[in-house]
Amino acid sequence: MSRGRARGWKNGAVASVNPPRGMRDFLPADKSRRERVLAVIRERYRAHGFDEIETPVMEDYDRLHAGLGADNEKLAYNILKRGLDADAIRAAADDPAELTDLGLRYDLTVPLARFYASHRGELPTVFRSIQIAPVWRAERPQKGRYRQFVQCDIDIIGDGSARAEAELAVATLDTLDALGLEGGSIRINDRRALDWMLDTFGFAASERAGVLITIDKLDKIGARGVAAELRDRGADESAVSAFEAFLTRPQTTELPPYGERQIRKALPGGAPDEFVAHLVGIGEAVAAARDGEHIPLVFDPFLVRGMGYYTGTILELAHPSVSYSLGGGGRYDGMIGRFLGQDVPAVGFSIGFERIVDLIAEATDAAAEAVVLVHDRDVPVGELVAHKARLIGTGARVRLETRTKNLKALLERATADGYSRFALVSAGASDLELKPLA
Amino acid sequence: MSRGRARGWKNGAVASVNPPRGMRDFLPADKSRRERVLAVIRERYRAHGFDEIETPVMEDYDRLHAGLGADNEKLAYNILKRGLDADAIRAAADDPAELTDLGLRYDLTVPLARFYASHRGELPTVFRSIQIAPVWRAERPQKGRYRQFVQCDIDIIGDGSARAEAELAVATLDTLDALGLEGGSIRINDRRALDWMLDTFGFAASERAGVLITIDKLDKIGARGVAAELRDRGADESAVSAFEAFLTRPQTTELPPYGERQIRKALPGGAPDEFVAHLVGIGEAVAAARDGEHIPLVFDPFLVRGMGYYTGTILELAHPSVSYSLGGGGRYDGMIGRFLGQDVPAVGFSIGFERIVDLIAEATDAAAEAVVLVHDRDVPVGELVAHKARLIGTGARVRLETRTKNLKALLERATADGYSRFALVSAGASDLELKPLA
Repeated sequence: MSRGRARGWKNGAVASVNPPRGMRDFLPADKSRRERVLAVIRERYRAHGFDEIETPVMEDYDRLHAGLGADNEKLAYNILKRGLDADAIRAAADDPAELTDLGLRYDLTVPLARFYASHRGELPTVFRSIQIAPVWRAERPQKGRYRQFVQCDIDIIGDGSARAEAELAVATLDTLDALGLEGGSIRINDRRALDWMLDTFGFAASERAGVLITIDKLDKIGARGVAAELRDRGADESAVSAFEAFLTRPQTTELPPYGERQIRKALPGGAPDEFVAHLVGIGEAVAAARDGEHIPLVFDPFLVRGMGYYTGTILELAHPSVSYSLGGGGRYDGMIGRFLGQDVPAVGFSIGFERIVDLIAEATDAAAEAVVLVHDRDVPVGELVAHKARLIGTGARVRLETRTKNLKALLERATADGYSRFALVSAGASDLELKPLA
Repeated sequence: MSRGRARGWKNGAVASVNPPRGMRDFLPADKSRRERVLAVIRERYRAHGFDEIETPVMEDYDRLHAGLGADNEKLAYNILKRGLDADAIRAAADDPAELTDLGLRYDLTVPLARFYASHRGELPTVFRSIQIAPVWRAERPQKGRYRQFVQCDIDIIGDGSARAEAELAVATLDTLDALGLEGGSIRINDRRALDWMLDTFGFAASERAGVLITIDKLDKIGARGVAAELRDRGADESAVSAFEAFLTRPQTTELPPYGERQIRKALPGGAPDEFVAHLVGIGEAVAAARDGEHIPLVFDPFLVRGMGYYTGTILELAHPSVSYSLGGGGRYDGMIGRFLGQDVPAVGFSIGFERIVDLIAEATDAAAEAVVLVHDRDVPVGELVAHKARLIGTGARVRLETRTKNLKALLERATADGYSRFALVSAGASDLELKPLA
C-alpha cells in the first residue's frame, strides 16, 4: 500500500471519493428502481418476440469513427493503446488517433450493425433484437445529461415492410403501459417525405442537410424563426417563402384520425404513394393490434430526428405528462450494408430509459416479506445466523441490525429501505415475534 | 456516409465485423442463460439482506493506480484525455500517464471502497452490498480468459466480527444451491495465520510477500517444489527446512469436522487464539445457519489468495464438479481507510460468474408459452399484428415468421430458440390452431 501511496495518490481525500465528472453512483433505492423498470421493459420486449443480445462496451476505433455516429463520434471516449513508448507518442503528436485503437460505444446501433454482420448465419431471417446497456458520451455535464447512461433499444433487421415499424410501435406502447405510463403516442414521419417536401418547395439537394437541421428547431423557434434561420443560411429565397407560407397556413384544429387523409392533409398536394402507403400501412397494423382503440399515432411532417443514417420512417415517443420525447427511432436501411457488404433493411427504436425511470414513482418491490432482525449486542453469532437462515427459508428477505439507542431511527431507516416487518432478538430466544414496520 | 468512408474505414469488411480481441458477443441463447443465472444470484443475495448498488465503469486514473489493485493495475484500460494538442502529446512522451485521466475498473472492490467513502452517511451502519457488473483487464487472450467479464461481488462493510464472514459464506452456498450446484464448500484461512506460521518457521518479515507467492503454488508444484523455489528465492535455509518438514509430515487422512480441533491440527503448535477463535466463530455461525447439516467449510493453512490488501480471513469456493475455484474473497480492513481517512472493517466475496455460467446446463425459460406464428406471404400486415397482439394478451411470447419452403428447418430453429408452440397463419383466418413444436 505504501507503494501505491508513493506512486501518485495525487488528489486529496475529499476530491477522490466522487465518481468521475458527469457520471453517477446509484444507491440501493435508485438501483433497485432502475432494475425493476429494466425488468418490465425486458419482459415486455421478450413477449413481443424480441431476443436480447450483448456486445462488448468497446469497439474498434475505426468502426466508431466511420461517419455512422454523426456528432456522437466527436464525443467518444477513446482507449489509450497499451505499451506505447516515447517514440510512438511523439510520432502521434499531430494525429492523436494514433494513440488509440478502441473506443467506448456512444450508441447501440453501430455495435448492432457490426454484430449482425458477424453473426448473420446464426440468427433468424428476421432478427428482432433487444439491447439494454450503457453508452458513453463526453458531453459537457449539465442537468439531466450524463456521460454514462443506459439505452434500451429494439431493432428489427431483415424486414422492409410496414410490419416492422408496427411491431416496434406496438411493443413500445405496450411497454409504456406496463410501466404505468398509459396514454403514450408516437409521432411519425418519413425521411423520404421530408426530402420530397423540400424538393417541392424548391430547396436545392445540396442545401438539404442544413435545412433539416433548421426545421428540427420548429417546436422551439416557430415558423418565423425557421424562415429567418433558413434565410441566414442563404437558402433559396423563393423556396423559403413558399415553405414559410406552408408553415403558417390556416389549418383546422381538428385532425382526422391517423390515416391517408390525415397524412395527405398535412403535406403539400401530390405526395407520392411510395411513402404515404408505407405510413398508412403502419397505422393499419397498429390499429389492428390495438383492436379498435384510438390509434396512438400522429403524423408530423416536420419531425426530423438527428441521425444522418435514417432512410425512411422516423418515430418519436410522446407522453402527455412531459413536453420532451421519451424515445425515438427510425429506419436505417443503408447501415448494415456498411458492415456486411450487402444491404439489409433495418429499423429500430430506443426507449428513453433515463427519462422514464425519472417518471416512475417509487415502485413497490414485488418480493415477498422483508424482515429486519434487530438484535442485542450479546446474542451469539450462531443464534443470529440461524434466525436469519430460518426466515430466508420461508421466502423472506432478511437483514440483521445491531440494536442501537435510537431504535425508532433504526426502524425508520429499514422502512425507507423497503423492509415491511421487524423482530427484536435477545440471546437464547427461540421464537421471534414479527411486527409490522411503520 | 461518404464522409465516413473517406475518413478512414481502414479495415476490410471481414476483419471489421469481429468484436475486439479477447472480448465476446453474446447471441440470444447465451445472453438469456446469463441473464437467468444473474437473476438467481441477485434474488438470493437480496434474500440474504444485501442491497445492489452501481458505480460508473470509469474511475479516476489516480484512484485505479494507487497500489490497491496489485497486478491488475498494469492491465487497466486507460481513457485518452479529450482535446489533447500536439504539445501536450509531445510533453507526455516520457510519461504516458499524462495522456490519460480515467480508466476502466479492473475489479469492483476499489470502486466499492470509493463509493462507501462518498456515501457513508446515506448507508446503514453495517452495509451489505451487491455489485453485478463487468470489469476489464487487458490480459493476453487465452482460452477461458476474457478482457471483459462480469463480476458478482457481495461485501459487508462495518462489521469486524465472524458474523460477516458467516453471512457471506451462507449466502454464497445458498446461491450455489439455488443454481443447481449443490455440494459446494468453502476453503478458509486467515492472513494472520499465514504470517504467524511464517514467523514460527523463522522466515524474515521482509521475505514474507515472496514466500506467500511461492506457497500459493503448493497445489501445482507440491511440497518439494515449494521448498526448491523458496531456496531459489534465497529464503533462510533453516526456515525452509522446517517448513518443508511440516509440509511433508505424516498426517491422518481423516480430518475432524471443521472446528478448533481441525484448525489446530493443521497448524504448527501454539497458534494464538486471536485468529483461531475468529475462524471457529465463522464455523459455528455457518453450522447454525445450516441447521446441523455437515459444515461446508475446510480449513486450509496454505490458502493464500493473490490480493495484497487482505488483512484477515481469506475464502475460496470449491465444488466437486471442477478442480478450479468458483470464487473467492477475504477481509480487507485497511482499504476503506485509504478513501475515508478512517478505518472501517470490510469483507467481500466474489462469485465466479463466468465459470458458473459455463457449468449451468441450458436452463428452461421460466416464461410461459412461447408461440411462433408462421404466416403466408399474402397475409395482410394488420391481420398478423392483430393475431400477435391477441396472443401476447394471453401472456404468451410471440414471434412472427414468414413461411419459407423449408418449413421443417424453420420450426427446428424456433424450437432451438426456446419456442414451444406454433400456428400456420393464412390470410383471413380468424382462429389459429396452436400445435406443439418438436
